[in-house]
Amino acid sequence: MIRISILGSTGSIGRSTLEVVSRSEGKMEVVGLSAGRNIKLLTQQVEEFRPKVVSLEREEDAQEFKQSFQMYSLEVRYGQEGVQEVARLEENDIVISAITGINGLRSTMAAVQSGKRVALANKESMVVAGPLILEAARKSGAQIIPVDSEHSGVFQCLARESQNHVKKVILTASGGPFFRLPTEEMGNKTLEEVLNHPRWKMGMKVTIDSATLMNKGLELIEARWLFGLEPEQLDILIHPQSIVHSLVEMKDGSVLAQLSQTDMKIPIQYALTFPERGEALLPSLDLSQVKTLEFYEVDAMKFPLVKVARMALKEGESVSVALNTADEVAVRAFIEGRLRFMDIPEVVTEIVEGHQVRKMESLEDIFEVDRETRSKTRNLIEQR
Amino acid sequence: MIRISILGSTGSIGRSTLEVVSRSEGKMEVVGLSAGRNIKLLTQQVEEFRPKVVSLEREEDAQEFKQSFQMYSLEVRYGQEGVQEVARLEENDIVISAITGINGLRSTMAAVQSGKRVALANKESMVVAGPLILEAARKSGAQIIPVDSEHSGVFQCLARESQNHVKKVILTASGGPFFRLPTEEMGNKTLEEVLNHPRWKMGMKVTIDSATLMNKGLELIEARWLFGLEPEQLDILIHPQSIVHSLVEMKDGSVLAQLSQTDMKIPIQYALTFPERGEALLPSLDLSQVKTLEFYEVDAMKFPLVKVARMALKEGESVSVALNTADEVAVRAFIEGRLRFMDIPEVVTEIVEGHQVRKMESLEDIFEVDRETRSKTRNLIEQR
Repeated sequence: MIRISILGSTGSIGRSTLEVVSRSEGKMEVVGLSAGRNIKLLTQQVEEFRPKVVSLEREEDAQEFKQSFQMYSLEVRYGQEGVQEVARLEENDIVISAITGINGLRSTMAAVQSGKRVALANKESMVVAGPLILEAARKSGAQIIPVDSEHSGVFQCLARESQNHVKKVILTASGGPFFRLPTEEMGNKTLEEVLNHPRWKMGMKVTIDSATLMNKGLELIEARWLFGLEPEQLDILIHPQSIVHSLVEMKDGSVLAQLSQTDMKIPIQYALTFPERGEALLPSLDLSQVKTLEFYEVDAMKFPLVKVARMALKEGESVSVALNTADEVAVRAFIEGRLRFMDIPEVVTEIVEGHQVRKMESLEDIFEVDRETRSKTRNLIEQR
Repeated sequence: MIRISILGSTGSIGRSTLEVVSRSEGKMEVVGLSAGRNIKLLTQQVEEFRPKVVSLEREEDAQEFKQSFQMYSLEVRYGQEGVQEVARLEENDIVISAITGINGLRSTMAAVQSGKRVALANKESMVVAGPLILEAARKSGAQIIPVDSEHSGVFQCLARESQNHVKKVILTASGGPFFRLPTEEMGNKTLEEVLNHPRWKMGMKVTIDSATLMNKGLELIEARWLFGLEPEQLDILIHPQSIVHSLVEMKDGSVLAQLSQTDMKIPIQYALTFPERGEALLPSLDLSQVKTLEFYEVDAMKFPLVKVARMALKEGESVSVALNTADEVAVRAFIEGRLRFMDIPEVVTEIVEGHQVRKMESLEDIFEVDRETRSKTRNLIEQR
């Protein structure tokens, strides 16, 4: 029996994880759930999966929730402390870290410090705090298994290979909804058009980041820390079919790749069952039906955030934090109608280029840069 | 220093192996070479690589050869015993078994029995004698590493996976030179047209077998024994670009694949250096240059030998021997102008369908079926 807690259970990854659990034929059990404000969905999840502890964002929601589950000895927590308590539950075998954004950093760190397996979907914590998280994992013995499909693919390809066999890791990107569009037509795309991702059904933030390719930029940085690579060992290929998730070029020229149906349940299940593999939850991939897999270089003019992310990949430290925060703020402003789609890259670029690199030695250093960048980015957006 | 003997040094695989050795920066050394009648090339190879022992097919060639190398303490052998002596040299770390056809069976077995690593390019010995070779390897402790690009790919993908994770192994086939041709136009293709393989530069027999897809049929049987799979776990996909060599579908729906430039030096080098990897001998694979990878189901009408090979895959025992021998004889007849291209499948099918399955308990059993089938197939061809 694998006992699981999910940080971010009502989000896209959280819901897929619960689907994997419910189809595990009793091999997996949920002990803790944390969510934001989607009380209705969390209520359904608690009824179905009967966790021991849940945590919500706000105190008032927690109190209301507690009352509706009086019949059942459910512990209800709230706020940052609540999530971290779920992350640290003694009963956990695996913690799924699936909160979006830098908001997931403290609870990811709490899970890593508790020494359990962390199935990492919150890529931002690796982006902003990679070295600190790795250091904590080394101390606690926590095992970090990536959930991002690309990184899960790399993890599987690396298998028996020693670090020094790896020449290059290539993450694929679908190119998002506008890949085949002339650059000049991308500018005024609406939220609805941006959210219409051709391949993946994902949360709102990551879907928007997929349309700007920022998501792939963040994934480069994530991969750097997860797999101990140098910036120049990391590359991106546009692959509109999203069947090949990543490729690892070995030093002898041989390339290993991981492919699957475009469904997050596959890498989630792998992160939960590794080193075993569970029963298939989807029909087999049939390449004779897919017929064609295409690969293209990234058009740097069309997707300027890739270059900016590469700068952060190289500089590391506070630059990655500034990159991540500027993007979070810009995407939020786009969602709220205060910024046009193609202004996202401009805003992020301006913030990152104006950022002075500083060493990041603690989470508090990171949150300080986050706060500063958040306010600078908001000001910049207001001035436009 | 890795000490290597090559059985079949003047053939396509043998020559590529020597190229890998000569580019190994002194990490590999040749101790033995066996060849057929290509004395001129063998002479050059001996001058360059200075082996301790060579073996030729015919006694008279061996004597002549011995005289021309009097200055140098070269041991010269001949015939089946000569090849087997090279296969058993105490100095060998690795034996490359690269003789074509059932002709390579005894020396492959000798290498396996000597308990060293056998880099296996002679797929036919696995096809006709898989269980016997595996049993001999189990006894001697020999490690068999495949050289066929497809099987090398599978071997690399399997890495950390336990046997029970594997749902399916898919070998790709380029489809040969006639893949895009209507079936009715294939009938009268000349030897020259058949030998004009679009992707791989290989020996004559395997190139012809690629045009009929018989090569892939033999490889299915080879993969069955190499990887301990059931017949229904093996499949073929047509992939005209020959970049993806094989794919392994895991039981959870994840697929691992191996890709590389279309050059035999890559799997040869891997078989020699495993578990390490050597320096790249070719430029990196650039998928943005390749752009498109296509996959198609096999057209059973166009490539009837796949169905016949599947029958042998299922029946095993003497049926695989009959399949292999009938094809060797038919291909030879085509090369010599005594059989049309599209008569190859007809002849092989008739022989295999008329064959009575018998248990194969020794190499002698296998050679008996080989002799019988050889004579039956010759008669059938003469009668046409």
